[in-house]
Amino acid sequence: MSAISITNSKSLMLFSGRAFPELADEVARFLDVEVTPQDAYDFANGEIFVRFKESVRGTDAFLIQSCGPPLNTWMMETLIMIDALKRASAKRITVVLPFYPYARQDKKHRGREPISARLVSDLLKTAGAQRLMTVDLHTDQIQGFFDGPVDHLFAQPLLTRYIADKYIGDDLAVVSPDSGRVRTAERWADRLGGAPIAFIHKTRDPNKPNQVVANRVVGDVSGRTCIVVDDMIDTGGTISKAVGQVLDAGASKVVVAATHGVLSDPAAERLAASGACEVVLTNTLAIPPAHRFEQLTVLSIAPLLAQAIHEVFEDGSVTKLFDA
Amino acid sequence: MSAISITNSKSLMLFSGRAFPELADEVARFLDVEVTPQDAYDFANGEIFVRFKESVRGTDAFLIQSCGPPLNTWMMETLIMIDALKRASAKRITVVLPFYPYARQDKKHRGREPISARLVSDLLKTAGAQRLMTVDLHTDQIQGFFDGPVDHLFAQPLLTRYIADKYIGDDLAVVSPDSGRVRTAERWADRLGGAPIAFIHKTRDPNKPNQVVANRVVGDVSGRTCIVVDDMIDTGGTISKAVGQVLDAGASKVVVAATHGVLSDPAAERLAASGACEVVLTNTLAIPPAHRFEQLTVLSIAPLLAQAIHEVFEDGSVTKLFDA
Amino acid sequence: MSAISITNSKSLMLFSGRAFPELADEVARFLDVEVTPQDAYDFANGEIFVRFKESVRGTDAFLIQSCGPPLNTWMMETLIMIDALKRASAKRITVVLPFYPYARQDKKHRGREPISARLVSDLLKTAGAQRLMTVDLHTDQIQGFFDGPVDHLFAQPLLTRYIADKYIGDDLAVVSPDSGRVRTAERWADRLGGAPIAFIHKTRDPNKPNQVVANRVVGDVSGRTCIVVDDMIDTGGTISKAVGQVLDAGASKVVVAATHGVLSDPAAERLAASGACEVVLTNTLAIPPAHRFEQLTVLSIAPLLAQAIHEVFEDGSVTKLFDA
Amino acid sequence: MSAISITNSKSLMLFSGRAFPELADEVARFLDVEVTPQDAYDFANGEIFVRFKESVRGTDAFLIQSCGPPLNTWMMETLIMIDALKRASAKRITVVLPFYPYARQDKKHRGREPISARLVSDLLKTAGAQRLMTVDLHTDQIQGFFDGPVDHLFAQPLLTRYIADKYIGDDLAVVSPDSGRVRTAERWADRLGGAPIAFIHKTRDPNKPNQVVANRVVGDVSGRTCIVVDDMIDTGGTISKAVGQVLDAGASKVVVAATHGVLSDPAAERLAASGACEVVLTNTLAIPPAHRFEQLTVLSIAPLLAQAIHEVFEDGSVTKLFDA
Amino acid sequence: MSAISITNSKSLMLFSGRAFPELADEVARFLDVEVTPQDAYDFANGEIFVRFKESVRGTDAFLIQSCGPPLNTWMMETLIMIDALKRASAKRITVVLPFYPYARQDKKHRGREPISARLVSDLLKTAGAQRLMTVDLHTDQIQGFFDGPVDHLFAQPLLTRYIADKYIGDDLAVVSPDSGRVRTAERWADRLGGAPIAFIHKTRDPNKPNQVVANRVVGDVSGRTCIVVDDMIDTGGTISKAVGQVLDAGASKVVVAATHGVLSDPAAERLAASGACEVVLTNTLAIPPAHRFEQLTVLSIAPLLAQAIHEVFEDGSVTKLFDA
Amino acid sequence: MSAISITNSKSLMLFSGRAFPELADEVARFLDVEVTPQDAYDFANGEIFVRFKESVRGTDAFLIQSCGPPLNTWMMETLIMIDALKRASAKRITVVLPFYPYARQDKKHRGREPISARLVSDLLKTAGAQRLMTVDLHTDQIQGFFDGPVDHLFAQPLLTRYIADKYIGDDLAVVSPDSGRVRTAERWADRLGGAPIAFIHKTRDPNKPNQVVANRVVGDVSGRTCIVVDDMIDTGGTISKAVGQVLDAGASKVVVAATHGVLSDPAAERLAASGACEVVLTNTLAIPPAHRFEQLTVLSIAPLLAQAIHEVFEDGSVTKLFDA
Repeated sequence: MSAISITNSKSLMLFSGRAFPELADEVARFLDVEVTPQDAYDFANGEIFVRFKESVRGTDAFLIQSCGPPLNTWMMETLIMIDALKRASAKRITVVLPFYPYARQDKKHRGREPISARLVSDLLKTAGAQRLMTVDLHTDQIQGFFDGPVDHLFAQPLLTRYIADKYIGDDLAVVSPDSGRVRTAERWADRLGGAPIAFIHKTRDPNKPNQVVANRVVGDVSGRTCIVVDDMIDTGGTISKAVGQVLDAGASKVVVAATHGVLSDPAAERLAASGACEVVLTNTLAIPPAHRFEQLTVLSIAPLLAQAIHEVFEDGSVTKLFDA
Repeated sequence: MSAISITNSKSLMLFSGRAFPELADEVARFLDVEVTPQDAYDFANGEIFVRFKESVRGTDAFLIQSCGPPLNTWMMETLIMIDALKRASAKRITVVLPFYPYARQDKKHRGREPISARLVSDLLKTAGAQRLMTVDLHTDQIQGFFDGPVDHLFAQPLLTRYIADKYIGDDLAVVSPDSGRVRTAERWADRLGGAPIAFIHKTRDPNKPNQVVANRVVGDVSGRTCIVVDDMIDTGGTISKAVGQVLDAGASKVVVAATHGVLSDPAAERLAASGACEVVLTNTLAIPPAHRFEQLTVLSIAPLLAQAIHEVFEDGSVTKLFDA
Repeated sequence: MSAISITNSKSLMLFSGRAFPELADEVARFLDVEVTPQDAYDFANGEIFVRFKESVRGTDAFLIQSCGPPLNTWMMETLIMIDALKRASAKRITVVLPFYPYARQDKKHRGREPISARLVSDLLKTAGAQRLMTVDLHTDQIQGFFDGPVDHLFAQPLLTRYIADKYIGDDLAVVSPDSGRVRTAERWADRLGGAPIAFIHKTRDPNKPNQVVANRVVGDVSGRTCIVVDDMIDTGGTISKAVGQVLDAGASKVVVAATHGVLSDPAAERLAASGACEVVLTNTLAIPPAHRFEQLTVLSIAPLLAQAIHEVFEDGSVTKLFDA
Repeated sequence: MSAISITNSKSLMLFSGRAFPELADEVARFLDVEVTPQDAYDFANGEIFVRFKESVRGTDAFLIQSCGPPLNTWMMETLIMIDALKRASAKRITVVLPFYPYARQDKKHRGREPISARLVSDLLKTAGAQRLMTVDLHTDQIQGFFDGPVDHLFAQPLLTRYIADKYIGDDLAVVSPDSGRVRTAERWADRLGGAPIAFIHKTRDPNKPNQVVANRVVGDVSGRTCIVVDDMIDTGGTISKAVGQVLDAGASKVVVAATHGVLSDPAAERLAASGACEVVLTNTLAIPPAHRFEQLTVLSIAPLLAQAIHEVFEDGSVTKLFDA
Repeated sequence: MSAISITNSKSLMLFSGRAFPELADEVARFLDVEVTPQDAYDFANGEIFVRFKESVRGTDAFLIQSCGPPLNTWMMETLIMIDALKRASAKRITVVLPFYPYARQDKKHRGREPISARLVSDLLKTAGAQRLMTVDLHTDQIQGFFDGPVDHLFAQPLLTRYIADKYIGDDLAVVSPDSGRVRTAERWADRLGGAPIAFIHKTRDPNKPNQVVANRVVGDVSGRTCIVVDDMIDTGGTISKAVGQVLDAGASKVVVAATHGVLSDPAAERLAASGACEVVLTNTLAIPPAHRFEQLTVLSIAPLLAQAIHEVFEDGSVTKLFDA
Repeated sequence: MSAISITNSKSLMLFSGRAFPELADEVARFLDVEVTPQDAYDFANGEIFVRFKESVRGTDAFLIQSCGPPLNTWMMETLIMIDALKRASAKRITVVLPFYPYARQDKKHRGREPISARLVSDLLKTAGAQRLMTVDLHTDQIQGFFDGPVDHLFAQPLLTRYIADKYIGDDLAVVSPDSGRVRTAERWADRLGGAPIAFIHKTRDPNKPNQVVANRVVGDVSGRTCIVVDDMIDTGGTISKAVGQVLDAGASKVVVAATHGVLSDPAAERLAASGACEVVLTNTLAIPPAHRFEQLTVLSIAPLLAQAIHEVFEDGSVTKLFDA
């Protein structure tokens, strides 16, 4: 006979970059698997080296990397790990980026700019990633940047459930900190049972490009517990100002909620001093102790990632995860 | 000697699909060139045939197609024309789609949907298009779908200049017909000298997905000439309702402005009866007599296209076209 | 342990475009499976939307589309459905086009023409199709246009078996309607037990390109039941004339046989009036009631498609299907 | 200033593989250029080495290779030369293959066969060829195998002009040696002023695949000077038999004409003894003295290649070359 | 239900080019499988035809080709076989080239040269190879030329084990025949228990490029059994001279060891007369009787290939094979 | 007329990443051009933004980046700048990396490692780089990793000229610090007029992988001025030890020479204390004041880069630059 046959089985292996190993470990516990051991270190001049300590041949590989600072280093590490998985014959490589880097550069705002978010997708693909899993993209269109399946998970149910439980009985309003995310606020309002929405309108001087001359709260927030929502908080400038403006406009209480806690300096200070009674984030990015503050609540994204990875591995439906 | 040398020159040729030849002709007049003659027809079973009547070898080809109905037919014609240009050795192929088809399917709204806007970019690239020129994309991120240079032109200056002139002295407000385009309204407001903005907030029943239970105007429109702005008007349902709501909320007058007049039935009737005093569109798409109505004003996009094509051919800056 | 293992299974799912759902249903019955339910409709401006109602993750997907009129619409729908399958993580996507569109534009007949048949293959590949199944390509070389496996099925055994049974005892001859398909006629003749063959020779005026000045039957048809064979019948002009010429040349009876019944107007009338005693086609394309006529016989291609899909799914040999 | 500008010029350089340098030299003379000098040799184990002796940076490179035996060696040499041109920064690489290798394997005749003609196109593209120029492809569809512009030249005008002049006054007929090339014969007949056509019909035993049981001349050849035409003559078996059959069928004289003289043994002997009064070929392939015989006439393809190269370099129309 | 499910199994099939079928047969015996039967032959003009006699649909295909002379022919055959496997729906195609052709042209030694070793990788990939298995690459960097997994096997353990056993008790030294492979010699020395190393230093005249004016043995070889090591022996010139120089420098005995026995003429004579007491090679390439000589020992590489193929098929670790 | 023609000109523009702008400025001065002004900065979370301040449409762009620490940041910046150039319609993009990052990871040293040097080439290509210019690659084979033209410049003539002048009259020897770069030492020796060569042989314990048990100088260095040569000096450990061993072996004086001064800590201290009388490097990488020491000499690579860029722009020969 000219063929040998064996029954096919498939195996899931989890890999973690060095950016935020605690998140990968937490996902691993939910999946009842261990993160594959590896050697990973920087050479003296900053070049990264990675080597897996077990055979990955034929495996369904999920590589989790949470690109906080130093962001470009973790991005390169991710690409190098994908290359190593490809060359070591992993069967399928899914890269799990809870926070998609460069998501804000998703278009040319003016001529001669890069579209770095598309570049990131192309780099991942070139290195060998076949699938992408991510959480709450800055704009949904980024899904279309990757040439392959994208599992776009939503943290909103996690956040709204928490807020609905905690602030039950309050008269809520949802506020977008700028005109670009009013649609997001509307989705929040729907989930919170039809709360009214508002946003901060920035007036620019037509003769001085990019210079904001005034901010106005559009919509009624007076006497309400206002949830100021965004996808990410970076330096916290916009959102802190928004908290103040909403309070000035008569809000009784302000809660800030966002998926990605980038929290670059001086975000922690600003948020702590903003007047918000609570700031709710998830751990798609590591939040080091130095960036924590009294009003901060961090919800874990690990159960959602674990469940999605499990469904992808077993060819189940990820869509149903969104309708919780 | 083992080489022959000649001084290099380059030539621009203009090509037009059959969707809206009048627009290509208008662009050609501005460029002082003629649209390249061709044979183009449908076989009995609907297959399209195209053949150029002049050599296109080595040319810098600009192919204009304006994808109105039957949209899929014109899309396939565009691809076939690009293929013919490629195989006939055009040096560079820029496809000019004043209206980018399938722009609204720019993401998976739910699982198991296509991202048709990305597909369109990939099809154009596969056929042989090296560059893309287009006007007012539904979302800016679509630029990033095409793997190559995209000249994204804006009709907004054309529209705002017209409205600023015509409604000079009026107390203006800019209104977004839904929560997703408030940022666009804000840009309009800036150009119109810092007018206030508003939007229509749709409340959905959380137990009945996609079912709108109420619409509210958020922001102050009372006593103002309201400019309801959008990127395109298809069946005109949303926008006509918005006009009514804005009038109900006390607007003194409503003007509708949009770049792309898709105007599928019954848009013309709806708009005519909406209460808007004027509807301003551009001719990125052909607007047949049957779809015209009394309040309609159509501004020509041809000068902008011609200027951009000229700059691209002569390696000038297209960026400066946006800052008029 | 750093891996979870499960036994691998694979599943077949059948998808159908909207062009000819009855064919897909018939194939589904033979496979004892149901066509996967989906939402598919046109937006007002002609843009197509498709969404599958069940998870397709990890499946071996077979998408059947039968590209009759409006052909370009169904072509775009096919591409969009492939994109949706790819993004929803189907494991393998086989597109089943019983009639390959644009097959006649398989070369540049003159300069500056497209090669649309190659373009079609590239578009399918770009959208995400990994394999192609089709029936009786206009020229066999089109197999080579697709960069991947092609299952090229032959309807000839189905047609010859029918004719051999029905016209048993007759003195047969096989006739090609033009000089380009004499080889096909020869293959028919072999299958029909070594019948003689003939063809219609068109004489062109060398001074007037493409102008036929005379048609002659080359080969002996006198007193025979002549089977005029072709791969497809579009408007029926060539084939109807051929029937007349063969009768004029003394044939006792003429049967027309072809795989693809494109039957653009006025094919039905022409064939009905051609003098042929029977016209035998398969249902690779839908033949609406308005295009049917008394002498028409339609054989179903569904069993052949179902068997081939089954073999592909189970990694059996499709080659053996051809030697019936 | 941040840019230096210079007027752009372009240069043509001609390169030749080692298969048939005399043809490249002849083309070079017509173009008034020299073939670029190079080192090209085989290492002891058969590996080929090529290095150009002049800078090719920025040039419009035309590489002529005439793939006679040892065909695979010349094919690999072609690929290696293209790679060297690409890495040495040639601006555009056009590969000129007067005889396209593996053209007969342009489809899967049965399952599990390669489509080598497509493979050849893909290999050329991968190595770096951007354009392809070739003469009289075995089937026109092969044009579509190459992903880029193909200049498909026709030797037919050269051959028919020669025959029309030489056999002026004879009563001509055109004969295809098998059923697959009757269309070619028809095109010859048109060019020769409307001569009648015939072909050899091979009857196969349906129970013994591929076994021919009888050959018949279909069409009238009696008393005529018959031109037996084909695209190539390899071992000359089919064509020599055809000559005999046509003579048996009463032809007064037989002339054989083909573009490509592959002439594998024992073609020369067979043709010399076939009864043909003349065998007319072109020099798309080298015909060594040992393969020449008394009745052989070889027409040079060099002027046609030179003219086409010139037009391509100067962005002229190659299409007009076909209508001589 | 809209899906049929079956348990997935996978099968291994072995294919062999015609270059060295005995090696494939030997590998097959170790794997307890048969080489898949095929038709493979040359057409009269040298074109290669291949067709597999069994269905290969869905199989994990391993294609062994051992590219000795005529090397370009076997290279093209390999590509054609890969194409046939791809088009016949093999699931995965691993090409096994025990000797990687064109490995020495792994860089541009001077300007305007090809990098043929990269070209070979790209051609294999284009034809459809997804993985590559090879033995002792001329330089390790060639692994990086192939865009996919490469299993790079080492014959060194096989060779050193043989030599350590046979020359046990001798005072060994390891000698590199030139300055470029001293690192290899060092690796041999490590495996042989820390033997000293030496190399032949070639002095070139700076005024006469590439002209060697003197050779010197650098390192101490006096009174030792010297193992002159290389990756391949082609014409044997360098290595034979090295043997002489090492003996002149006082070596008591010289053994030559290399992985690849290219043995182009006059290698056999040179080696036989070189003064070496033994020449140890493996059979990565066929060594015909005419190239064998008294001092030659050939070790079989088949067990190593078989084991590696088995591990790849069963997703085991190939890495462990290297540490024997 | 259906075409507009203009004479074509081409322009060179120089771009610089932020890693080492002084080098780009120096190159610019030699070319008599200015580095194109740009905005480039890091967002708070480390994401990089770049925008060019002048139109780059149609230009021949040369982008210089010198990847010292933080290496991954500069690598990402390079990719982002290439993306911006591509999307802004630069005609050709040549990336100039005087030091090629990750060059040492040019192969899998063991299983499950990445080949990062290949990855870097693929990332550059994906972002849009069409050509690569670099200096003294760690291994020449890396040229073959990039799919396109590579201008591989050599700093050796610069270094040997300096040393030959300065140490004229000394009795020189060239020493490789390990067995892997003896070939490099040989090339140096040839350029220095036939000096003898030596290398440091490391003996490893076969039972303890990667553990060096002894170092021996192989070759005669006694009483000579020894030039210890390498391509790069990173932490300086190997090279400093080599200096000591060579001095111990009786060298009269030791000069260290290398192209790339990576000089990670504690390289400066080690080299200063190594006993070498001079350490000669080039400025392919910035050497900050803190890394400079008394014996250090830095030669500028800018003239070589400027000359090569000039030749590439004007389509001259870069090859001749190597033979100075």
